Amino acid sequence: MTNQIQKAACIGGGVIGGGWIARFLLAGIDVKVFDPHPEAERIVGEVLANAERAYGMLTQAPLPPRGKLTFCKSLEEAVEGADWIQESVPERLELKRGVLTKIDAAAKPDALIGSSTSGLKPTDLQRDMKHPERLFVAHPYNPVYLLPLAELVGGEKTSRETLETAKARLAPIGMKGVIIKKEIEAFVGDRLLECVWREGLWLIKDDICDTETLDDVIRYSFGMRWAQMGMFETYRIAGGEAGMRHFIAQFGPCLSWPWTKLTDVVDLTDELIDKIANQSDAQSGARGIRELERIRDQNLCGIMQALKAGDEGRGWGAGKLLADFEAHLWKTAPKPVLAVGDEPLRLLDVKVHPAWVDYNGHMTEHRYLQVFGDTSDALLRLIGSDLDYVAGGHSYYTVETHIRHLGECKLGQALYSTSQLLSHDEKRLHIFSRIHDAATGDLVATAEQLLLHVDSKAGKACPASPAILEKLAAIAAKHSKLPTPEGAGRSVGQKKS
Amino acid sequence: MTNQIQKAACIGGGVIGGGWIARFLLAGIDVKVFDPHPEAERIVGEVLANAERAYGMLTQAPLPPRGKLTFCKSLEEAVEGADWIQESVPERLELKRGVLTKIDAAAKPDALIGSSTSGLKPTDLQRDMKHPERLFVAHPYNPVYLLPLAELVGGEKTSRETLETAKARLAPIGMKGVIIKKEIEAFVGDRLLECVWREGLWLIKDDICDTETLDDVIRYSFGMRWAQMGMFETYRIAGGEAGMRHFIAQFGPCLSWPWTKLTDVVDLTDELIDKIANQSDAQSGARGIRELERIRDQNLCGIMQALKAGDEGRGWGAGKLLADFEAHLWKTAPKPVLAVGDEPLRLLDVKVHPAWVDYNGHMTEHRYLQVFGDTSDALLRLIGSDLDYVAGGHSYYTVETHIRHLGECKLGQALYSTSQLLSHDEKRLHIFSRIHDAATGDLVATAEQLLLHVDSKAGKACPASPAILEKLAAIAAKHSKLPTPEGAGRSVGQKKS
Repeated sequence: MTNQIQKAACIGGGVIGGGWIARFLLAGIDVKVFDPHPEAERIVGEVLANAERAYGMLTQAPLPPRGKLTFCKSLEEAVEGADWIQESVPERLELKRGVLTKIDAAAKPDALIGSSTSGLKPTDLQRDMKHPERLFVAHPYNPVYLLPLAELVGGEKTSRETLETAKARLAPIGMKGVIIKKEIEAFVGDRLLECVWREGLWLIKDDICDTETLDDVIRYSFGMRWAQMGMFETYRIAGGEAGMRHFIAQFGPCLSWPWTKLTDVVDLTDELIDKIANQSDAQSGARGIRELERIRDQNLCGIMQALKAGDEGRGWGAGKLLADFEAHLWKTAPKPVLAVGDEPLRLLDVKVHPAWVDYNGHMTEHRYLQVFGDTSDALLRLIGSDLDYVAGGHSYYTVETHIRHLGECKLGQALYSTSQLLSHDEKRLHIFSRIHDAATGDLVATAEQLLLHVDSKAGKACPASPAILEKLAAIAAKHSKLPTPEGAGRSVGQKKS
Repeated sequence: MTNQIQKAACIGGGVIGGGWIARFLLAGIDVKVFDPHPEAERIVGEVLANAERAYGMLTQAPLPPRGKLTFCKSLEEAVEGADWIQESVPERLELKRGVLTKIDAAAKPDALIGSSTSGLKPTDLQRDMKHPERLFVAHPYNPVYLLPLAELVGGEKTSRETLETAKARLAPIGMKGVIIKKEIEAFVGDRLLECVWREGLWLIKDDICDTETLDDVIRYSFGMRWAQMGMFETYRIAGGEAGMRHFIAQFGPCLSWPWTKLTDVVDLTDELIDKIANQSDAQSGARGIRELERIRDQNLCGIMQALKAGDEGRGWGAGKLLADFEAHLWKTAPKPVLAVGDEPLRLLDVKVHPAWVDYNGHMTEHRYLQVFGDTSDALLRLIGSDLDYVAGGHSYYTVETHIRHLGECKLGQALYSTSQLLSHDEKRLHIFSRIHDAATGDLVATAEQLLLHVDSKAGKACPASPAILEKLAAIAAKHSKLPTPEGAGRSVGQKKS
């Protein structure tokens, strides 16, 4: 459990600080915040709202109960008792050094202290600290609640153990800590970004293209390559069977060509700033920042989900990381408690996801079965047929399903589902599930399903465990009193009897 | 039809030339190729095999019959009659200029001539041509059959009409032509890539990080941002409500910081080349180039599919482009011809996609219904309820489905599906569909479905058009002689009678 952050503190709650706060809270970690900015609570609240919406699209895995968020009146109050303190104040050395020195003095001695600086060297930041060995840079990328990367950089006095512990503690909150070998200003990511930014400014200034064209050049080509492989792996492929060595031999000479103006620094005149701002307005001004954020977040979630299917379903890059994060969520989620009442069991709350709708905005046929499948999965976990049980070699397989469509579902519509146990024996489970509109309660679809308990290795039916059968009996005791659902026991096209 | 390329010629068939060839062929365009390289046919064949596998993952839209591929003995023979000629020979000015001048002399006068050069200026390339106004750079990105971008750059003698026509002709083959305003060496994309490459080499040489860390920094952070928005739109969001102007004010000063070594050129010593090659081996050497290509292609397809759901299902960036390409494919596909025999209608051939399987490699429950849904869609198109019919306000809605699972499907498994008409009337369609293993013919699942013909605006059932009813009658005449399928008419859990 040493790798699980128990209490976090965030000093500075802007877009980056707010992103860290959302990461921690949604991973179930309590966060205390200090930020003297009068609008800090509003800004953090907006980032958190974005993050919650995004996580709903990112994963169906069970998020832990959200951590407790407390705004504090002083830095000292915020860091008290925290085991991870993240500093995200404005990018000025004197300011950051002062804040970090105060954090160091107030924090418990073994607390880790990360700085979100995008360029300052940790050696300069830790100069005045009493326990400088636990100070490191944890440089994240916006939006912090979705993009997994944190560059971990130590200064001269940072211990190796600090970096390794920081990396290990980031994994359970879905982040990828990457340790940078030597400290330099701007580390690795911002070095790369800065040169694209510089070159980009020249291209705009010299009227080679406008901002929209430059963005299109990036996102219709190497942007997609870099979402899943970086530069060197991509070029390795470009080198073909001959590999990296061949690639360098072929393209190395370009380095001395007169292709770049990188040796000059663009003069950021008012004229150039106007030009960029105007082009950016023409390109993106039709949409507000909040709308662009929503679009970006949905795209990032979709990309990560797509990468989860990568490498033949084993997961690739950020998609593999998402799969690991989900596995962690499932593993650490409390076992659901079965509480049977006089109603069908309410099992699932979902919203119709953009990927679920057709070009008319209606939920596609097979997504109904996806919701019914998730519903029966939730029921199975509730009776004890969970991941551990499946790993032990037993499982329930669906053998038959009868779906009736009674209404339409639209993009974003909130739905909930229930299941009613019709009958069961040692091997069979006969259920009737319903999908309702969450706002009106209207029934939009039903599914009658037969599931069979199997020995998955042998591939044949066998009796379920006594623990499962006991839970089924408890449900049956209540559900046998429910009326038989309208539509149950019917074949396709059969009229109401 | 002027925007549809009728005949293409490719001069040079390496990885880039092969990518163009695959783009054209899979869009149904005949391609004649000239490449004196002894292994040209093998290399093109490998690229084409990759492309065909990738398109199977990219889209379910109907690809036209593959164009005819002809290897020619001379440049003149290849370009004869072509209306788009793409030059992809090695990157040497004298060589390219000579080849392009020969192409110009042999091509019909109104043929467009694109060069795949990644850096040479079109003005230098067109110097000796008789019809220089139709020469332009069409600079693509590897893999050309998947990445949509082509930078379109004209030289001093290139006509504006040429660039506009080139852009219009790329759209129907799924590509995004982006016109660059002024010619410079390396255009826009390679300018940006070159500065990242330069800076990256310094980071490796100075031991700040290794190639794997650098790649991780890219792909877990801004790589995913750039797959969907470029640099300026991303920074606009970072600027918040205050926008681009605020962002520049905040981050502009960094430009004069001593953060970069871009002003120096890395000396590519043997030692540095060894270092990079060894790090790249450690990072990626466990997988061969072909395997990396397959992983990359699957990831790119998944990313584009994810972006197709972007902007609330309207499609975003490369995903919007994919949606447009698919719409074009559906629109231009020949109407399917109904040919009823004494068997159920064979309607679909699919392979189990990586996104369709669970962590055990088995096809997920709801993906069976996806295949059955695609099967009934294919049947509907066959009887005349196609996109035009739906656009006219009528459609068939599925109201009931009874699925039985009889076997398991695994990743990559080839399947085919059939439908048998059980009964129909003016409004109702009662079908029985089957999914078979394509190799063994074994039945893996069945679905009995009831569909209702509706007036989609009024949202209520109404009689289908006479043309549709006529086709249904033709099917019924044959299918009424087929035996009632085992399993039809049964309710869930009902034993065989």
